[in-house]
Amino acid sequence: MESKSYMVHLNGNGVHSDSMHSLNVNGGVYCAKMKIRKQRWNIKASEMSKNTLNPIRAIVDGMKLSPNPDKAMIALSIGDPTVFGNLPTDEKVLQAMKDAIDSHKYNGYAPSVGYQKSREAVANFYSCPEAPIEAEDVILTSGCSQAIELAISVLCNPGNNILVPCPGFSLYKTLAVSLGIEVKHYNLLAEKSWEIDLQNLESLIDDKTACLIVNNPSNPCGSVYSKEHLQDILAVASRHCIPILADEIYGDMVFPEHTFHSMAALTTDVPILSCGGLAKRWLVPGWRMGWILIHDRNQVFGQEIREGLVKLSQRILGACTIVQGAIESILNNTPQEFYQDTIGFLKSNSEICFSALATIPGLNPVRPSGAMYLMVGIEMDSFPEFESDVDFTERLVTEQSVFCLPASRVSPFVPDSSPSLSLQAFEYPNFFRIVVTVPEDMMVEACSRIREFCQLHYRPVVPEGNDLDQ
Amino acid sequence: MESKSYMVHLNGNGVHSDSMHSLNVNGGVYCAKMKIRKQRWNIKASEMSKNTLNPIRAIVDGMKLSPNPDKAMIALSIGDPTVFGNLPTDEKVLQAMKDAIDSHKYNGYAPSVGYQKSREAVANFYSCPEAPIEAEDVILTSGCSQAIELAISVLCNPGNNILVPCPGFSLYKTLAVSLGIEVKHYNLLAEKSWEIDLQNLESLIDDKTACLIVNNPSNPCGSVYSKEHLQDILAVASRHCIPILADEIYGDMVFPEHTFHSMAALTTDVPILSCGGLAKRWLVPGWRMGWILIHDRNQVFGQEIREGLVKLSQRILGACTIVQGAIESILNNTPQEFYQDTIGFLKSNSEICFSALATIPGLNPVRPSGAMYLMVGIEMDSFPEFESDVDFTERLVTEQSVFCLPASRVSPFVPDSSPSLSLQAFEYPNFFRIVVTVPEDMMVEACSRIREFCQLHYRPVVPEGNDLDQ
Repeated sequence: MESKSYMVHLNGNGVHSDSMHSLNVNGGVYCAKMKIRKQRWNIKASEMSKNTLNPIRAIVDGMKLSPNPDKAMIALSIGDPTVFGNLPTDEKVLQAMKDAIDSHKYNGYAPSVGYQKSREAVANFYSCPEAPIEAEDVILTSGCSQAIELAISVLCNPGNNILVPCPGFSLYKTLAVSLGIEVKHYNLLAEKSWEIDLQNLESLIDDKTACLIVNNPSNPCGSVYSKEHLQDILAVASRHCIPILADEIYGDMVFPEHTFHSMAALTTDVPILSCGGLAKRWLVPGWRMGWILIHDRNQVFGQEIREGLVKLSQRILGACTIVQGAIESILNNTPQEFYQDTIGFLKSNSEICFSALATIPGLNPVRPSGAMYLMVGIEMDSFPEFESDVDFTERLVTEQSVFCLPASRVSPFVPDSSPSLSLQAFEYPNFFRIVVTVPEDMMVEACSRIREFCQLHYRPVVPEGNDLDQ
Repeated sequence: MESKSYMVHLNGNGVHSDSMHSLNVNGGVYCAKMKIRKQRWNIKASEMSKNTLNPIRAIVDGMKLSPNPDKAMIALSIGDPTVFGNLPTDEKVLQAMKDAIDSHKYNGYAPSVGYQKSREAVANFYSCPEAPIEAEDVILTSGCSQAIELAISVLCNPGNNILVPCPGFSLYKTLAVSLGIEVKHYNLLAEKSWEIDLQNLESLIDDKTACLIVNNPSNPCGSVYSKEHLQDILAVASRHCIPILADEIYGDMVFPEHTFHSMAALTTDVPILSCGGLAKRWLVPGWRMGWILIHDRNQVFGQEIREGLVKLSQRILGACTIVQGAIESILNNTPQEFYQDTIGFLKSNSEICFSALATIPGLNPVRPSGAMYLMVGIEMDSFPEFESDVDFTERLVTEQSVFCLPASRVSPFVPDSSPSLSLQAFEYPNFFRIVVTVPEDMMVEACSRIREFCQLHYRPVVPEGNDLDQ
């Protein structure tokens, strides 16, 4: 070791001296005149953490409201199908987990993209002649959230923008903004069962657009797009050469008279990262098992995007190995009746809710076709006491102990702290979202309370002459 | 809806026309003269994915070497205690998981920072009079990797730097560089059982230094720091007001004659994020259960860092709920003998390895005190056939089918693709790392092969006169 040209005096450990610091280095004694640097603690949270917007906090803050003490609270706000215990997962799903534990084979590290056998099981489950995939096209992730995070992270640089639905799931924005990626909201059309306003979508595309996110079936809308509409969307992506992040976590959760089409099955040229997971269809959102299916028949993504995904997956690794060990059995052995029963319940509850609310003056529910949600329009003019859907839903809590998420604040989910996105960006601010996974009796009771609430506050709007252009 | 001032011609879906695009919008027919934008696919992986360095690939690439076909491969390179089946977790740990599954209580979403009850269990397990913590001081994460990621992400902005040990675990750098954070390596001193070169450490601190990472017990060194040395490190952090990220994933995995001191227990003023998890001590790295313990008795982090961590945890949520449901039982019911047996095995295997290698001319193993690793110095002058530790370990594979990680390339883990960090940054390039979790007979066999290999290639260095200044 070469000797150093300075000296150190020993004066004990950890003593705050002024500009002379003492160190015993390698048994030698040196002296160092240290620069004085920071003299006091001044730790700030990073910009990234500050830029991580938090719609959940908005919900929690909203819930500081006191419900009506005479009525038990009914939360129609929580997108977790497990909370009421009425929608358990299948026993075969649980058995698959216990078998994985008993095998002692799934305690070590898996590859960062998942066990080969588990990826193969997912590929086999989702591969179809129109969009064939293999194990190499599957990346297992810690929930669909991480799938979406990896997909956005690999496609976008800071300064890029992504196109996200409005109203839409808040996570896209949360992730993008924290990464310095701009979010552009495209409008969904309530009057067309929440189809995308294609003209509006296309008008938002510019040379910084890195990705189009399509969520089908939709949270919060419960909509399921037709083959034709999906083809129209793909045509836009194809024209502008924009890859698609298809959030298909509610894939196959559609009511019997509807059909779910994966976007990948409808295109040969648009590259698609399809994100999914066990959370919703298998009713185990806490298990954090998600995946990305890479559909790239024309090698547009090529090796670069695949390698990028692999690299990003190595940052913190992915899904719990026990769930990975169980997934083949979960996918292959869950009985069809389980899926049918879930869908049957969701459809029945949706119908109960839709039918009840459709007859309430001042409310305009949009009939869902799948997923677990239903959006309800409020004719605000008929409720002059309330300024907005936020007011409306807050008073619904304090008077009727029914909690629904207001669409302007939480479902397009603009937290209060984000003035950069003004409300005018939302075509449909006067909506609220209902989760239809609650037990049937609670749904009936909730609808009856909503009726009572609306009847109390409804004021019919009298047309003022023919001045319709106003 | 206000009417638009342009028109659209219908000409079918998805047709690549030139500058006229056709849309049927809301049932109306409009015409839009669209700007021509991108006309061909040109998707690039993001800078972040490209900046995610990948030491694992370096290992895999290295393994394209063919082992000696006459000798079965012995991999002493994999830091996963479960691969050989000789170190199973305890049955009570597995039972806790099955109980969590059977309870049906842990299938839904947990709060992003973990179930309150699970956080409480971790707090109770790690709280001590010198460093008391409560549930609110615990954030559950998807493995210790995510704990480290959240800790770095909340403390550092792009342009900041962090101080990481050299040799050290590669993940710190992987995460930091992908976030635009500079990594400064401080030296560990092999001749002082891998204590930190405090003078070197202190010399690296500048006003952009956001965090000091201390890994104790150490991967790859197997070192366990004395109370006094930890106090010296804390004194440096205190003088310069630098918070510490204590990677204590190997906490309590120390050999009987040594004691593990958590850094938090030795300071009242330096704020510490201690990262840990089930992976190593409970031998279930695949389960991805990690945590951050927030030690901040002087409220230096304050609410800001806590809130930042909560916000960041909401990006993709954390650990699998089944493991969260099991953790209270895992922490409280795993028998002491299990821990003792694991440590006993690791110590015994370390001793076998150290004793064997210490008698081999040309090798200088450093005796470990804990964790699962042992570093071995190579007197490169005595092996003139080899240019570096990389050469040395590669030939060890091709001749003896024994794979150890070379320290200059993988253990301080500089991937080939990163010329920005030159080798001179490493005080000890001529080392390799051995993982001591393999079965005893394999360890004995591996050491015997290493001896054979060294005997074949060793050339004693003859001192040339007294010209020692050369």
